[in-house]
Amino acid sequence: MHVSLGAKTISFPNPVWCIGSYDPSGKPNLMTIAWGGICNAKPPSVTISLRKVTHTYQNIMTHKAYTVNVPSVHYVKETDYVGMVSGESTDKFAATGLTPVKSEIVKAPYIKEFPLILECKVLQINELGLHTQFIGEIMDVKAHENVLDETGGAQITKVLPLIYGEGNSEYHSVGEQRFGKVFQIGRQLNLKKQKAGELVQ
Amino acid sequence: MHVSLGAKTISFPNPVWCIGSYDPSGKPNLMTIAWGGICNAKPPSVTISLRKVTHTYQNIMTHKAYTVNVPSVHYVKETDYVGMVSGESTDKFAATGLTPVKSEIVKAPYIKEFPLILECKVLQINELGLHTQFIGEIMDVKAHENVLDETGGAQITKVLPLIYGEGNSEYHSVGEQRFGKVFQIGRQLNLKKQKAGELVQ
Repeated sequence: MHVSLGAKTISFPNPVWCIGSYDPSGKPNLMTIAWGGICNAKPPSVTISLRKVTHTYQNIMTHKAYTVNVPSVHYVKETDYVGMVSGESTDKFAATGLTPVKSEIVKAPYIKEFPLILECKVLQINELGLHTQFIGEIMDVKAHENVLDETGGAQITKVLPLIYGEGNSEYHSVGEQRFGKVFQIGRQLNLKKQKAGELVQ
Repeated sequence: MHVSLGAKTISFPNPVWCIGSYDPSGKPNLMTIAWGGICNAKPPSVTISLRKVTHTYQNIMTHKAYTVNVPSVHYVKETDYVGMVSGESTDKFAATGLTPVKSEIVKAPYIKEFPLILECKVLQINELGLHTQFIGEIMDVKAHENVLDETGGAQITKVLPLIYGEGNSEYHSVGEQRFGKVFQIGRQLNLKKQKAGELVQ
């Protein structure tokens, strides 16, 4: 039985990402967001949503670039702190001890300590209402060597990304348990149905 | 030390959502996606990205509505199966045993068995390249009673949403561990810095 919660911005899972940008004078800044996601395969793109009042909004409008920095659970304090103060009054890199690295691809800094980085050039700016949505082309993805498996792929259980638990306002991450392979676990359902003599496809 | 993985659609965490829609004749359909997220507070909105070749794309273009159905780990087989077959040739509700419920708010069905539902009306359609991005206004959120806490908020550890682990193509979910309260755990960093005599704000 479902109950109505109203017209609210509730969904699971929400990412927790630190957005890297330069201000007009070239000073590196960070902002923590929970609203964004991959949105296109060709060109590979990721979307983030920000309010216009943020320092990061002005920075991205100036340089048309940003980085998505995926924090591991080990940086929950730094990530939360970045979301609590404004880049206008605080040097967030200095305050958190995080290290800005100059991207060689886009005009935005990324965080040395974070395990997964997306370097993005702005392709589209969509005014949605309170929030502005930036569509950024992913020019490169960078990962710490220790989060890669033997095939060179980034492992979510090694990255241990923070996940925003909207209902309780707490930070979570992925658990150890795995629930099956994509495009494989579903076959069990198909086989079961076929054995029962039902036509499913 | 970061290593370059190239210009790819890698990020964590990716959601796993079943999108509910009606075809032009009114037959309910489902599609599983991993690309989407909340994108605006006013009006409350959620974005999803689809390819034009999908049955769901045609359905949403026809009725300008969709539902986001958040599966729990208990429905991993059904969710994966929905992502493996086309709605053009398969009645996915019949094949999975999931129950379509007619929304009273939007022209799209939702899944009775899934713990969290977003009912959406299309506000914007953005052609991004291979994928089309739909921006949907969230008209209502519905949750199973057993995933709510005493304040009426939906709990991520009760919803147990599926999370797509891009690198290993496996389904994951949130773990039991919590890593601190939002806008609170970061204060520890601030206090520590202040004690050390550093000015951080």
